[in-house]
Amino acid sequence: MRDFIVIGHKASTSSDFSLNDLPGSAGRMDILCRCINSAFFLSHDIRTDVQVHLLLLGQPEPGKIIRFNGENIKHLNPDERSSGALIKKALEKNVSDVETQSTPGVWIRKGNLKTLLDGFKNESRTLAYLREGGEDIREIAGSLNDAVFILGDHLGVTDEEEEIILNTNAKLISVSPHSIHADHCILILNNELDRALEK
Amino acid sequence: MRDFIVIGHKASTSSDFSLNDLPGSAGRMDILCRCINSAFFLSHDIRTDVQVHLLLLGQPEPGKIIRFNGENIKHLNPDERSSGALIKKALEKNVSDVETQSTPGVWIRKGNLKTLLDGFKNESRTLAYLREGGEDIREIAGSLNDAVFILGDHLGVTDEEEEIILNTNAKLISVSPHSIHADHCILILNNELDRALEK
Repeated sequence: MRDFIVIGHKASTSSDFSLNDLPGSAGRMDILCRCINSAFFLSHDIRTDVQVHLLLLGQPEPGKIIRFNGENIKHLNPDERSSGALIKKALEKNVSDVETQSTPGVWIRKGNLKTLLDGFKNESRTLAYLREGGEDIREIAGSLNDAVFILGDHLGVTDEEEEIILNTNAKLISVSPHSIHADHCILILNNELDRALEK
Repeated sequence: MRDFIVIGHKASTSSDFSLNDLPGSAGRMDILCRCINSAFFLSHDIRTDVQVHLLLLGQPEPGKIIRFNGENIKHLNPDERSSGALIKKALEKNVSDVETQSTPGVWIRKGNLKTLLDGFKNESRTLAYLREGGEDIREIAGSLNDAVFILGDHLGVTDEEEEIILNTNAKLISVSPHSIHADHCILILNNELDRALEK
């Protein structure tokens, strides 16, 4: 399983946003929607071996995690509104520390970066943190097919978050000579991992 | 200059579509919008050395070409609606065989695949056609930084279009072990070309 964690610092934690204004009213939810597209879509197929965990830290109830699982997901199309609609439906649920399914393949719960990463550490998963200056993914993709990748949004990752991430001994990796968007990182990661599997 | 041509077989050639329904009423315009995103966006910057040519073949007036130039473009944000809005504005213009600018960095004209490719051939540009089974981009990226890349949409490329493309002696290239979306191809191409330039 490939897992992608994306931190949405401003992403709405209420369903009270407009699908017609994902960047504005929903707190740059458009970025998270494109991450869903990059993570799951092949040309005429959905990747069943992928999960995405969106960490929503915007108002009014910062600290919700929405999990998308490619094996079970339904009603997902490639356009931003489609994943936006599934996020909105998840946010309509009452949340607790235990996951609730909102639509097939989509779950929501309360949580923060530390609880999310601790869960993966307890499963002895390899964590990889996308950061400029990290090790080139191309050199190590072969060892990361089952890794958990951690990405920031347009605001990057705060110092406090970075400390939590580095405390997990996550590998630092980079995918491009430029600084690029989170959804673009995910797409390149998928491509590098696909290629490594073919070798 | 890197040029990307994307063929939108069903993409609306009228501005009479809803930005709230880019996949449906606009004839899978969402695909073309995501191609714009993949082609131009870096994290906090726009690629000035890129052009995208959207060939719109849907009703009611099949055969319009919208050109986006990264050097001049304005009012472009990463979300699908943003490029959709620029496409809609372009389609409000009366078109002829000569380009008309609709907004900064965006031009529209009448045209088809042959006229578009002939223009590039006359400039002695290298053409590269994205197709499964083509040569691996990773082997030849170093020679393709100034190439013109030709991509199909969700319907691929018709036999007739493929004949026109192959008659230009376009190189056949592939970017992934899987069949993937046009916007994903563009993103991987940009990454491979960026990496080759760094070498």
